[in-house]
Amino acid sequence: MSSTYGNILKLSIFGQSHGPAIGMTLDGIPAGLPVDKEQLQTFLNRRAPGQNDWSSPRQEEDRPEFLAGIVDGKTCGAPIAAIIQNTNIRSKDYSELKDCPRPGHADYTAQIKYGGTQDVAGGGHFSGRLTAPLCIAGGLCKQWLEKEGIRIGAHILNIAGVTDWNYDPLAPQLELVDTNFPVLSKDFGNKMKDAIATARNDGDSVGGIIECAVTGLPVGLGDPMFGGMESRIASIVYGIPAVKCVEFGTGHNAAFLRGSQNNDDYAFENGNVVTLTNNCGGILGGITNGMPLIFSASIKPTPSISIPQQSISLSRRENVSLQIKGRHDPCIVPRAVPVIEAATAIAIFDAYLQWKATNWR
Amino acid sequence: MSSTYGNILKLSIFGQSHGPAIGMTLDGIPAGLPVDKEQLQTFLNRRAPGQNDWSSPRQEEDRPEFLAGIVDGKTCGAPIAAIIQNTNIRSKDYSELKDCPRPGHADYTAQIKYGGTQDVAGGGHFSGRLTAPLCIAGGLCKQWLEKEGIRIGAHILNIAGVTDWNYDPLAPQLELVDTNFPVLSKDFGNKMKDAIATARNDGDSVGGIIECAVTGLPVGLGDPMFGGMESRIASIVYGIPAVKCVEFGTGHNAAFLRGSQNNDDYAFENGNVVTLTNNCGGILGGITNGMPLIFSASIKPTPSISIPQQSISLSRRENVSLQIKGRHDPCIVPRAVPVIEAATAIAIFDAYLQWKATNWR
Amino acid sequence: MSSTYGNILKLSIFGQSHGPAIGMTLDGIPAGLPVDKEQLQTFLNRRAPGQNDWSSPRQEEDRPEFLAGIVDGKTCGAPIAAIIQNTNIRSKDYSELKDCPRPGHADYTAQIKYGGTQDVAGGGHFSGRLTAPLCIAGGLCKQWLEKEGIRIGAHILNIAGVTDWNYDPLAPQLELVDTNFPVLSKDFGNKMKDAIATARNDGDSVGGIIECAVTGLPVGLGDPMFGGMESRIASIVYGIPAVKCVEFGTGHNAAFLRGSQNNDDYAFENGNVVTLTNNCGGILGGITNGMPLIFSASIKPTPSISIPQQSISLSRRENVSLQIKGRHDPCIVPRAVPVIEAATAIAIFDAYLQWKATNWR
Amino acid sequence: MSSTYGNILKLSIFGQSHGPAIGMTLDGIPAGLPVDKEQLQTFLNRRAPGQNDWSSPRQEEDRPEFLAGIVDGKTCGAPIAAIIQNTNIRSKDYSELKDCPRPGHADYTAQIKYGGTQDVAGGGHFSGRLTAPLCIAGGLCKQWLEKEGIRIGAHILNIAGVTDWNYDPLAPQLELVDTNFPVLSKDFGNKMKDAIATARNDGDSVGGIIECAVTGLPVGLGDPMFGGMESRIASIVYGIPAVKCVEFGTGHNAAFLRGSQNNDDYAFENGNVVTLTNNCGGILGGITNGMPLIFSASIKPTPSISIPQQSISLSRRENVSLQIKGRHDPCIVPRAVPVIEAATAIAIFDAYLQWKATNWR
Repeated sequence: MSSTYGNILKLSIFGQSHGPAIGMTLDGIPAGLPVDKEQLQTFLNRRAPGQNDWSSPRQEEDRPEFLAGIVDGKTCGAPIAAIIQNTNIRSKDYSELKDCPRPGHADYTAQIKYGGTQDVAGGGHFSGRLTAPLCIAGGLCKQWLEKEGIRIGAHILNIAGVTDWNYDPLAPQLELVDTNFPVLSKDFGNKMKDAIATARNDGDSVGGIIECAVTGLPVGLGDPMFGGMESRIASIVYGIPAVKCVEFGTGHNAAFLRGSQNNDDYAFENGNVVTLTNNCGGILGGITNGMPLIFSASIKPTPSISIPQQSISLSRRENVSLQIKGRHDPCIVPRAVPVIEAATAIAIFDAYLQWKATNWR
Repeated sequence: MSSTYGNILKLSIFGQSHGPAIGMTLDGIPAGLPVDKEQLQTFLNRRAPGQNDWSSPRQEEDRPEFLAGIVDGKTCGAPIAAIIQNTNIRSKDYSELKDCPRPGHADYTAQIKYGGTQDVAGGGHFSGRLTAPLCIAGGLCKQWLEKEGIRIGAHILNIAGVTDWNYDPLAPQLELVDTNFPVLSKDFGNKMKDAIATARNDGDSVGGIIECAVTGLPVGLGDPMFGGMESRIASIVYGIPAVKCVEFGTGHNAAFLRGSQNNDDYAFENGNVVTLTNNCGGILGGITNGMPLIFSASIKPTPSISIPQQSISLSRRENVSLQIKGRHDPCIVPRAVPVIEAATAIAIFDAYLQWKATNWR
Repeated sequence: MSSTYGNILKLSIFGQSHGPAIGMTLDGIPAGLPVDKEQLQTFLNRRAPGQNDWSSPRQEEDRPEFLAGIVDGKTCGAPIAAIIQNTNIRSKDYSELKDCPRPGHADYTAQIKYGGTQDVAGGGHFSGRLTAPLCIAGGLCKQWLEKEGIRIGAHILNIAGVTDWNYDPLAPQLELVDTNFPVLSKDFGNKMKDAIATARNDGDSVGGIIECAVTGLPVGLGDPMFGGMESRIASIVYGIPAVKCVEFGTGHNAAFLRGSQNNDDYAFENGNVVTLTNNCGGILGGITNGMPLIFSASIKPTPSISIPQQSISLSRRENVSLQIKGRHDPCIVPRAVPVIEAATAIAIFDAYLQWKATNWR
Repeated sequence: MSSTYGNILKLSIFGQSHGPAIGMTLDGIPAGLPVDKEQLQTFLNRRAPGQNDWSSPRQEEDRPEFLAGIVDGKTCGAPIAAIIQNTNIRSKDYSELKDCPRPGHADYTAQIKYGGTQDVAGGGHFSGRLTAPLCIAGGLCKQWLEKEGIRIGAHILNIAGVTDWNYDPLAPQLELVDTNFPVLSKDFGNKMKDAIATARNDGDSVGGIIECAVTGLPVGLGDPMFGGMESRIASIVYGIPAVKCVEFGTGHNAAFLRGSQNNDDYAFENGNVVTLTNNCGGILGGITNGMPLIFSASIKPTPSISIPQQSISLSRRENVSLQIKGRHDPCIVPRAVPVIEAATAIAIFDAYLQWKATNWR
């Protein structure tokens, strides 16, 4: 529970934003799977801050140290453990966060839940920084899935209302989007960057939507009811801070279609069973149907803004005005793209292992 | 996994649509909690088919028999088990479903996953009928939460594009909506019913959106990351057939707001901490903040329609036209309302027990 | 938790001794596995009471009704559910058990834990009767393991101090022991029966030890640390009422050997790797080594005896003398033999599924 | 699974004997619990090697670095993570272990299970060194239980057949045994040390039995069937390498008693309910009865001995003689005592949290 995920694999994530280190353990992985650490670093760099003018200038190295589970470039059957040292921590007084909670953050809920014993520095365990170990685990699962012919890619569908429409749910273009600002159309991308710059200049922030596709899936991953692919993916994707909507295929819009529009007709195509549309996002009855699995996640605008906001003093029990200092990402959507891929990879690999457990007859 | 849910409580749902019985076991529940079977039956009746002209005419009794766990009207500490006998099953040949899958159903995915050994009659374990035992478990949890001052209510936000706007996320009107066609505005409700009737006449179906609120929650339910309330609720709500989107608070639309719009400012109100808006849906960092917990779930249009659709014959490996016979719900949204409440109650009660486990210091 | 077991498979057992029915659900099982109900009934009959003069005369039918999960004689991928109706329940006043707990039973601990709301009739959920649904689940797993070449058999090693020594841990004789009083030597068996008869005549009871073997295991089942075969087996076998010791291979006696005596030397035998002794019981590092897996479980003497015992009145808060009426098994060891096999089969099949999940590379 | 334990708390242990570090994560712990690191170090030192002439001379520091979960001397609600750097690793060629497995070790089973990709250096993840992080987790749980009035202590009951009989299951002497060679009688302790010295001189090893007691338990910890205290404790204690028997109360010997001897009579004593004997080890129906919880674990003799043994060459497929070099503990029983306490503390604290989850009505 809490920071633990998985049925066959067991992922446990630990660390606080400004603690000595953050990290993860990943148990239940087959032995002998190869690990390409260079490829993993490239993946982690997509999430790292400070590389572009739309993200926070804080420069951190997200370089994992593997403590266990990998020997001679392969998994050895023992649990995998990796940490990232927190080297670039500025000493600062965060105690005000215990008294005066920032709107949109977990300050208030943590304060009450943990009775004031929570780690407030940098957001503690609620910090977006905890998505770095998630990306270690997910980056590994992504590599292993690729060996099985299963590929995962995500792209920015929308930022600040600017939508990049060129996505084909029947044949997602995974190659095009593997960059730090992954859009299908450069024009729309530039408009998004403009919107982010405007929000930053206003001391404000913007949100967006990330779309993710998984291709090469066998028919049959996932289980009925609570073991369905939607449940498996949503429960890990909602573990990413700032996600407020997870929808599959047509998703939210399925409510506005008729059955005759929303149903995906079947056909044989080159001897293979396909659906002619992919409104279901590749999942029927919770189980993959062999078409690309498609879902999207909406990311709320970064809660840290420099515009003054109304808050409270818990000690003085009065309303106060709060102005957050320091520089913050005016939009975390680009950095969240590999995080969505990582979470997806973990959910898919777990379902893949469960499929192996029951599909041997 | 699969049909099992919960961290502290353990729910296991079993049965196939046309098997001898469907049912559930619910383990890990405190002893001595009262059970009002009459109130439970009233709740179950909201889900039962055949009661209105917009739902399927098949008349079934959803009357649970409790086999275990309840003695003298109270939980006795042992696992609770209840079944519903399947009395009204018409003998019919369903074998065609193994060869010619219906678009939008789990026929094809189950056929491949289970190698043709799945139970096809009436949709087997993938049938919406399996939400009846979910409602038994959820109806019980709902009663127990009410004793703790926590109330759950859902209503139809939208059917076929007709939206019932009168919802107040700061003070949800739970009392008004506890009926078989739960809307806030009768006018909008009548328009929805008209849309359903039109779809039925066309041999087609419509979907919709259900909004759910939980009031009276303490601050502090839920855990960081994968134990957050969003993960807990989404993973069970996605276990309900036909749900394709689960969003919290502003949800999908949070992507289009700026931080200054989306953040919920704090204030003291009559000595209590409140937020002045509720865009976060009562959840920050995965943890309840004491405001109403609000989420919505989008239901796809019923896949069973009488309009001819394009499918395939798996044995002959050729494309075929398929026309589904029999009568089906042209819209399952009204019947899904108590199911959403039930799923929510289970997730909340599980989180409540976990809160008790760690909040005693 | 509580009455739920398993990692890949999920077993949930429910029911109280004198409730309407007892039963089990078993989720996570591969589809298409054949079920021989006749063979299962033969297995269940080994546990049933009333068939011999050493067991309780109460005549019950342990005939499972399958409610779900099996279609046309095969698993269909959905959770399996089965119940046994409790037909032979004599109406009786059990309320005294709430006030005056029987030594050696769970009366007192249940009374305090559940605050008096527990089901006392016939021992409620703590009754040995709950091993009947355990035998349904285990009997199925045993059949499925046999298809994979894995066989499980248990025998009475000891009753009342009479030991049946003829067991060979290198080549267990599974065929000989599949009866209602499974011993290797009839002579020792007769002495055990005499000891049981003597205890019954004295109004007393006796315990014993059951030894269990599993043959045909591949090398590699089980996982390090808490996923080891010892942990997996002990945690389910200790779920059987009256078990107070679980030991593997030499077990308890390993403490008295030197390393040079206890280590099992390796050798090639007909091209296969074997150990020349089997002191480790076929498990090293928690993982099967291909030799027979051997363990034993000690069963305490039946706590229900007619000799007067010293107890207390909880209401009057004073010491009282208690004499238990009615007829009870003076020795449950023979009936516990198939229960031990069932529990073992469940643990082994769960480990087998996990092995499939990770052993496909 | 594998190296993960717990229901409410989630313990995950990682590391290999000669990897960069070993460690653990512990999730699900209440916030605000105090941590006394000095007391923890004292506890860990009881397990550390090299401090006495009966244990291995290798000098290692078992000094945990806490990476997460503890702030200002208290748990902060986030998962706790700690590592121990492996500083004292001698470079050595272990590849022979892949070809020529040592009897009594996991070499052969790991080789087959992991296809030769396992970490063989120093035993890898199967090394007794992994009990160090278990002691970190358990040492913390032990402290927290003490705040609740629950105390845990273990002692050496037997080494090499020398038994220290002075244990009172009704009033265990926890204070006397908190040392590096914890026995109740110095005389018996000296005889044990003599037996260890003799075995070392013979190039051989000896095993023993550890008895553990828990006092101050409330009535009602544990759950029926697989959630019983025996299942909970056995499944973690069997995760400790070399344990081959776990028995509760009279344990193995209960099989040889009559019911009238084995049942524990009840009485009021100073207004409290007690049992006059404690043959059940403080557990009835899986649930604590308020008496001291007593169990013992048998430890097999250290498999590493210098006497030549018969093994095989897997590559040459022939029998070979194997002589293990280097110095090894001739008896690990004294060092295993705190490990047994640690495992017990984890199991008890997990059951304690579950009791809190369901005992609030």
